[in-house]
Amino acid sequence: MLDDVVHAVRVRSGVRVAELDASATPGFSGDRDAGEELLASIGERMSDVQERLFAHGRTGGTRSVLLVLQGLDTAGKGGIVRHVLGLVDPQGVALRSFGRPTPEELEHDFLWRIRKALPPAGRIGVFDRSHYEDILVPSVNGTADAVTLTERFAAIEAFERELVAGGTSIVKVALWVSRDEQYARLRERLERPDKHWKYSPGDVDVRAARPAYEAAYDDVLARSSYDDGVFQAPWHLVPADRKWYARLAVSALLLRALDDLDLDWPPATFDVATELARLDATR
Amino acid sequence: MLDDVVHAVRVRSGVRVAELDASATPGFSGDRDAGEELLASIGERMSDVQERLFAHGRTGGTRSVLLVLQGLDTAGKGGIVRHVLGLVDPQGVALRSFGRPTPEELEHDFLWRIRKALPPAGRIGVFDRSHYEDILVPSVNGTADAVTLTERFAAIEAFERELVAGGTSIVKVALWVSRDEQYARLRERLERPDKHWKYSPGDVDVRAARPAYEAAYDDVLARSSYDDGVFQAPWHLVPADRKWYARLAVSALLLRALDDLDLDWPPATFDVATELARLDATR
Repeated sequence: MLDDVVHAVRVRSGVRVAELDASATPGFSGDRDAGEELLASIGERMSDVQERLFAHGRTGGTRSVLLVLQGLDTAGKGGIVRHVLGLVDPQGVALRSFGRPTPEELEHDFLWRIRKALPPAGRIGVFDRSHYEDILVPSVNGTADAVTLTERFAAIEAFERELVAGGTSIVKVALWVSRDEQYARLRERLERPDKHWKYSPGDVDVRAARPAYEAAYDDVLARSSYDDGVFQAPWHLVPADRKWYARLAVSALLLRALDDLDLDWPPATFDVATELARLDATR
Repeated sequence: MLDDVVHAVRVRSGVRVAELDASATPGFSGDRDAGEELLASIGERMSDVQERLFAHGRTGGTRSVLLVLQGLDTAGKGGIVRHVLGLVDPQGVALRSFGRPTPEELEHDFLWRIRKALPPAGRIGVFDRSHYEDILVPSVNGTADAVTLTERFAAIEAFERELVAGGTSIVKVALWVSRDEQYARLRERLERPDKHWKYSPGDVDVRAARPAYEAAYDDVLARSSYDDGVFQAPWHLVPADRKWYARLAVSALLLRALDDLDLDWPPATFDVATELARLDATR
């Protein structure tokens, strides 16, 4: 069932985000209750394999997982962090959010701040927005020409190849909400005083530029969904009008990546009998 | 009930850790089931106030909370992070662990690496070990004389005063396990292959030096439990042989600190009617 979801959300060539049914639940035929039940059971499995990953990191292992979350405002990136990453030990998660680059960051190559934020070995890193903003935003604002964008795609591919070769599994997710659902969620942020802090006037500007963002996302999904057998860093396009489905799909992707590491508990780096004797001497 | 726990674990003058009943449940008369039920309800309240704190941080607020966790090996610091901080949104938690200082860190004042790890506004920072290691370890190893230790205590007091004045509430917790329980937990790490990664031969050396650590903890609790009415950063000594109680007590302390911030949702930084009209124009 999980594999059905994983397979169904994987980006296929020629995808157009504007044509996606954002309220669909690809690969899953159950309702919300069934989805939440499945999410809880995924949580338990994820917690176990996450601890193995952490244990490896603490004993010299080099593996890590990097979840890259992209999506328009209101797509639910924050909810994913809360409800999916909340399923595992906070010690095992390294979360980084990327906003508008600072003046210092702008003095460096666009990947400079990204490299500094990579997860240590043994962790699940989460990027709330990422290096793909450096494609999306200039595409929409027209501040980068086609040559610059092509150079950035090349830099990103080289960067991700390097990460994968170094032991990091990359899980790339674009969360997608429909125009109507985005409207409803922004309206709720304006109507409810306990949600005002989530709203920024810029959100409406971005919404007004939605067709340009759609084209930019199509470009990103078409040009950076890597899979040559050895080097795998494909995109997944997750319909996000139903929050429970988006959480289920991302947790399925994360569990699949963790399971694929196929980690057993690391062997002792000391002689167990000797240590038992030393410990007993302190009884 | 929570306030009973908060009050009961607060350090009183003249406390001797070696005399603590580490299996006690001060301020709480219920059993494990009752404790776990209460922990779950604290979790819901904590999650709400944590989100308010986060919202304030995102809208220019300066408040934060810093949980300082100290304790001998096996005292359960990791379990606290998992089970207490796991109750709130991972985005709102900034966790830092301090191990043996690196060569670079040793070239700086002992508070240098600590300052770099302070939580941003709006977050619950967690220090898994802390600047108090820079008192405890040299006290035990005899690598700092009394004058140096006194200077460090003075530096720590000035540092914590500065934090509190800047809007950070400090919650200091020493988790305390008995000799017998520590033995049992170390033995389990040696007997179970899935726990080997948590064991280090140094753990037995530290255990063998337990009387020196007890004296060093007594010194820390006696000399750095600050409360002059305005500047409050007292220590709490939490019996930790019963993991469920330690988690309950730390969550009670954290909830008390969050509640004391008395935060409402931050007001809108924009004109709501104008924004509603702008949003509706994009419908």
